[in-house]
Amino acid sequence: MKSSFLSQLAQRSKEPAISWLMRLTLDHPKLISLAAGFTDHESLPVSQTMRLLEQILGGKKPSRSSLQYGSTAGDTDLRRLTAHDLALLDGHADPETYSADRLLVTNGSQQLLYMIAECLCDPGDIVLVEDPSYFVFFGVAQSHGLQCRGIPIQDDGLDLERLDRTLATLKRKQQLHRVKMLYLVSYFQNPSGITTRLKKKAGALAILRRYEKEAGHPLFLLEDAAYRELRFYGPDVPSALAIENAADRVIYAGTYSKPFATGIRVGFGLLPKTLFEVVYRIKSNHDFGTSNLLQQIMARALASGEYESHLTDLHYRYARKAHAMTAALRECFPRQVEWVEPSGGLYVWARLPRSLKSGIKSELFRSALEKNVLYVPGELCYADDPTRAKPNHEMRLSFGGASEKDIREGIARLGRLISRRI
Amino acid sequence: MKSSFLSQLAQRSKEPAISWLMRLTLDHPKLISLAAGFTDHESLPVSQTMRLLEQILGGKKPSRSSLQYGSTAGDTDLRRLTAHDLALLDGHADPETYSADRLLVTNGSQQLLYMIAECLCDPGDIVLVEDPSYFVFFGVAQSHGLQCRGIPIQDDGLDLERLDRTLATLKRKQQLHRVKMLYLVSYFQNPSGITTRLKKKAGALAILRRYEKEAGHPLFLLEDAAYRELRFYGPDVPSALAIENAADRVIYAGTYSKPFATGIRVGFGLLPKTLFEVVYRIKSNHDFGTSNLLQQIMARALASGEYESHLTDLHYRYARKAHAMTAALRECFPRQVEWVEPSGGLYVWARLPRSLKSGIKSELFRSALEKNVLYVPGELCYADDPTRAKPNHEMRLSFGGASEKDIREGIARLGRLISRRI
Repeated sequence: MKSSFLSQLAQRSKEPAISWLMRLTLDHPKLISLAAGFTDHESLPVSQTMRLLEQILGGKKPSRSSLQYGSTAGDTDLRRLTAHDLALLDGHADPETYSADRLLVTNGSQQLLYMIAECLCDPGDIVLVEDPSYFVFFGVAQSHGLQCRGIPIQDDGLDLERLDRTLATLKRKQQLHRVKMLYLVSYFQNPSGITTRLKKKAGALAILRRYEKEAGHPLFLLEDAAYRELRFYGPDVPSALAIENAADRVIYAGTYSKPFATGIRVGFGLLPKTLFEVVYRIKSNHDFGTSNLLQQIMARALASGEYESHLTDLHYRYARKAHAMTAALRECFPRQVEWVEPSGGLYVWARLPRSLKSGIKSELFRSALEKNVLYVPGELCYADDPTRAKPNHEMRLSFGGASEKDIREGIARLGRLISRRI
Repeated sequence: MKSSFLSQLAQRSKEPAISWLMRLTLDHPKLISLAAGFTDHESLPVSQTMRLLEQILGGKKPSRSSLQYGSTAGDTDLRRLTAHDLALLDGHADPETYSADRLLVTNGSQQLLYMIAECLCDPGDIVLVEDPSYFVFFGVAQSHGLQCRGIPIQDDGLDLERLDRTLATLKRKQQLHRVKMLYLVSYFQNPSGITTRLKKKAGALAILRRYEKEAGHPLFLLEDAAYRELRFYGPDVPSALAIENAADRVIYAGTYSKPFATGIRVGFGLLPKTLFEVVYRIKSNHDFGTSNLLQQIMARALASGEYESHLTDLHYRYARKAHAMTAALRECFPRQVEWVEPSGGLYVWARLPRSLKSGIKSELFRSALEKNVLYVPGELCYADDPTRAKPNHEMRLSFGGASEKDIREGIARLGRLISRRI
């Protein structure tokens, strides 16, 4: 018998970093985890969800349909409200672009990312990603046999010159036809915390368009806006959908998981017309529709204002927790470590001096574990890209899941370990 | 530019029959649908779910974790209770086989079917399916570029002689290495209503084993038990897991969607050890875990006895509705139409005389639509298999979703149309 009876996809599917990190957490019960992308536990909307559920299932006229199959594309109210809110957020009135008909409800935005990869990419195709970017997406890319090319980011988002240069190189190597999309985590990016300016999104779209003719097909921008509504300071930035003539190139991935409740896994995609029907078919095969009960909770949360008011609470909480982390960083981390004050999201991205390794095999990472502190080694946040080495001197520090006390203690312990090594 | 920029998978993904049927339903608001696989609306567990949610989210010690991310494999209690109940159902004490460690929670059992196809099959691989079988699975097979071979079924399940003959033919044609699994809907099959005897499951496994050496890899049995707990008459049949030494070849797909609430999309798989880790990785990439809230509802439903007591109610309801349908069939359908009294599930499979076509392009189907009755044409329940023609004289009649009054009226209308044509 052959050693493997598995599909190509299965053989390519490596153990995801997230499982490994979760296992470390379980193996160290006293661990202070600054690694998990968990949201703040204390502010989970328990009473709000209960009120919404009483409206749905309680009373004299319960919504039986919440416990029945729905349609594959999603609950009509939720699609309408989501598309409407997105149009408002973007300050954009084009009803074509923000049509509920283009909106597909998914099991968290992760399922949308997966289906977009399935929809656009064959093994060997190339996806452009940020350097660094969201590591779970790399798992999707890897399992589908995709090549990643990392584009560095600056304080205001993607380095457009490098995007152009990478595409020019791919053109020269006659690989442009394999490029399918640019994956951009555009708000309070996981892991860097950086938000992409609108101008840069427009710039990226313009650059992609310039290479389309030679690619022989559209080059899509997959905008992952998972952290958009976790903004606690400063103004919102319109999504790439707001850019003129962009609606046929932008795939917008949104979610209610992080801003409302990660236990209610409802995400969505606003898709170009040309893609909607195809992704819809893929969703039919995956599960023919996300749980109706979860969708009705979210639809009521939006319609009743519970969602908005929860966001306000959440922003206050996260601002405090972010502050707890940055205050501790200022106090305990040596000045050689660089990081940026977050104005949203869940993460602080700390850059150590290049000589100090932070990776999973590093002495620092092991020492931190011994001291019962876990962070996400920066190297995990870089896609496999044979054209460059992975930096190995950064750490993703999450202030989402840990308590303020644990944040202070965890950063203090890390600070001592780092100081000793500089 | 190329006409298609889509992946191979996307290009292969056809519009699923289920969408087309749903659209017909929407376009005909007065339609009596005997087509939908919806469960009985009136008996959806509204008050039970509300009670469970009050336990989870109400009171002084709400379970905040229900609103937080869980683990990729699923809620520990739900996995344990499910594995335990399955062992009890199967009357089998082997703790190895029924270990919670092999149990993966999914978004309905549909997601498991999808992931198993992803895990085992490459384009061009062959899947053995029953003739007829569950049409949504054909969509999964089609999108993954799989070939199907239909094996006829008899009153007590798969025709084993035909299974053997099909495998022998594939061996002769040197295609055995492409065969990956046999997909069996083993309880109150969708669409035929037939339940596979345990002896036949053992027989099928033995036949598969005999061809493994020449296939060069294990040949799995994917047992889809979606309707198992919708049994209203007669004794349960053990699953293939109960067969000696079968645990490394049987993939058991179960669900709480149909027996509890289709709006709470929780399914599961009990997997061979060799597959668990791989499917787990695929699940990590899909969505890294099913909604924790839904899982906690199901775990409490099982632990509290709400699930069992709901099943009892449900069996009574479905027995009544099945009886309403068969009484109407006896009264209104001509004697030349063959069908079997159901003892579980949601369907009656009616076989018209071969000369009377029932397919989507048939005069009968169109006339039925004109009279506002929808059934699932039997031809949709046969996989594309170039080695045989699709029968075109059958209909799947569901007593799940429609009211008893509509069932009687729908069958009466169909009866008139059929009688006129025989």
